[in-house]
Amino acid sequence: MTAKILDGSAVSKQILAEIKDQASVFEAEWKAVPTLALMRVGDDPASVSYAKMIERTCGKVGMDFRSYTLPSDASEAEAVRLMRKLNDDDSVHGIILQQPLPEGIHAEAVVEAMDPAKDVDGAHPLNAGRLARAAFVDSPQNVGPYFVPATPLGGLELLKRYAIPVDGQRAVIVGASNLIGKPMSLLLSRHWATVTVCDLHTKPLAEITKQADILVSVTGVPHLITADMIKPGATVLDFGFARLGDKWVGDLDAEAAKEIAGGISPVPGGTGPMTNAMLMRNTLTAAERQVRLGVKAASRVSSASLTSVGLGDMQQPADRIMQ
Amino acid sequence: MTAKILDGSAVSKQILAEIKDQASVFEAEWKAVPTLALMRVGDDPASVSYAKMIERTCGKVGMDFRSYTLPSDASEAEAVRLMRKLNDDDSVHGIILQQPLPEGIHAEAVVEAMDPAKDVDGAHPLNAGRLARAAFVDSPQNVGPYFVPATPLGGLELLKRYAIPVDGQRAVIVGASNLIGKPMSLLLSRHWATVTVCDLHTKPLAEITKQADILVSVTGVPHLITADMIKPGATVLDFGFARLGDKWVGDLDAEAAKEIAGGISPVPGGTGPMTNAMLMRNTLTAAERQVRLGVKAASRVSSASLTSVGLGDMQQPADRIMQ
Repeated sequence: MTAKILDGSAVSKQILAEIKDQASVFEAEWKAVPTLALMRVGDDPASVSYAKMIERTCGKVGMDFRSYTLPSDASEAEAVRLMRKLNDDDSVHGIILQQPLPEGIHAEAVVEAMDPAKDVDGAHPLNAGRLARAAFVDSPQNVGPYFVPATPLGGLELLKRYAIPVDGQRAVIVGASNLIGKPMSLLLSRHWATVTVCDLHTKPLAEITKQADILVSVTGVPHLITADMIKPGATVLDFGFARLGDKWVGDLDAEAAKEIAGGISPVPGGTGPMTNAMLMRNTLTAAERQVRLGVKAASRVSSASLTSVGLGDMQQPADRIMQ
Repeated sequence: MTAKILDGSAVSKQILAEIKDQASVFEAEWKAVPTLALMRVGDDPASVSYAKMIERTCGKVGMDFRSYTLPSDASEAEAVRLMRKLNDDDSVHGIILQQPLPEGIHAEAVVEAMDPAKDVDGAHPLNAGRLARAAFVDSPQNVGPYFVPATPLGGLELLKRYAIPVDGQRAVIVGASNLIGKPMSLLLSRHWATVTVCDLHTKPLAEITKQADILVSVTGVPHLITADMIKPGATVLDFGFARLGDKWVGDLDAEAAKEIAGGISPVPGGTGPMTNAMLMRNTLTAAERQVRLGVKAASRVSSASLTSVGLGDMQQPADRIMQ
């Protein structure tokens, strides 16, 4: 058996084409262009090249992109001030705070200064908490609108587009990061998977990974997941991305694994391009929520009248995209 | 082998005695009595008897208790108004919103109107999100202060007091509720357990429960967990509580299981009394955070200067109680 390749490059192109259509409908209806702002402090080279990629992707789908960079010696107060400025700017619908931040700035303080309604990469704890508290997908929605980090959302979307069953399946996640592993576990649980989260102290790891119908790896350790750790026919979502010799590789030893697994997301070209597509989708959703509601700060805590609206009127755009 | 009984009644008495001492130190130092407010809408009999129990427990540890009841035909706006009044009342340190609420009131709208800094039962999504984003226990703390729901916190405390290892152990949670199953999984993960969450679609359930060193059941289905579903020597935390004939029973068929398991929390007298004790501890923690900071609303979102303080100055009382 040779594993099916879950072609994130191809699928993401298709999704971006869908989003481009939706963004132009949005623009015609609301006379506004969905706009994503990237904020960073300092010029970390990886952040700069990531920003360029996001800018290109925005261009492809007809969205506006803006970059805001503070000098690397900026204070936490300055970073928070810039964040608030972006919150208050009605023409900005989505905000991403690029990390790492320089020493001396508490990342969480800046993240929590972000308006949760603009937090299109699901970094704010209010969004994490609503995801954690969200009911199973077939229950009536019981939390306000929220955003899921783009990377795990892209993984789930890849499973959906290849019609890989999740309900009732065993899923194993290797690596419990805040932006991928943990939200991925909550997403898969919400879709009725039975999810196990493994970490560095899990022993023996292979005994657990071999139980997985859906194996998710998020470690950045090249070829950590070997063929003998995989249940025959399982689907492997690979979120690793590391340099090995002259090649980019994932967590999976794909060459050997493809004879065992039923499906594999390749590296590169698997979960990576899906992240970009989901970021665009979340930005469009943010723009829709904001213009429909006619206010910013739709998810602001302790603002129960808005929250209450959120539970009713805002359900439509949230539901269009069932996370 | 006969399982050790994890005597929540005895342990909770000991914890309440500790809290009583701490509360009197607090009172002497700050000239204020830690105060818990219970809010409900209507007179659901279970809520009324729960309130009486909490009132008694507050009395035992020298804390003040206040009950606020709206008529069962109260509107969501009235419930939110009362919640805000409690937020603004400096003499109230902790708030619990009793559920269920009457139809026509969105529970989440009232929950999210609560000041997260007073949310001593960890119901607000900001608290759920900070727990979800919290690092492993041995990492430097990287999120603001938060509250964990009292019931799972009591389960963890029971494990700790009986020195049952968690790090590197397999934990299986049957039932993914927002107030018990999900936060319990995040708590145990944070303590380096490898955690699997099972739901109604998990099949076969026994195959997974038998892998658990720590088996947690949160279903309310009497005797769902039978002896043959338990790994020899495992610890079983039973969060079930249901009427069977003339007795209160848990999820576990304890009579048969005690020959297999290494430890069992009995029902009644196991996880139940621990919940009360943790509620008192969270209320005391809330009072400490509020008086130390000299302001209310310590965890309010988009208030980065406070959040920033939270990451530094407020760490001490948060750390004293390592969740």
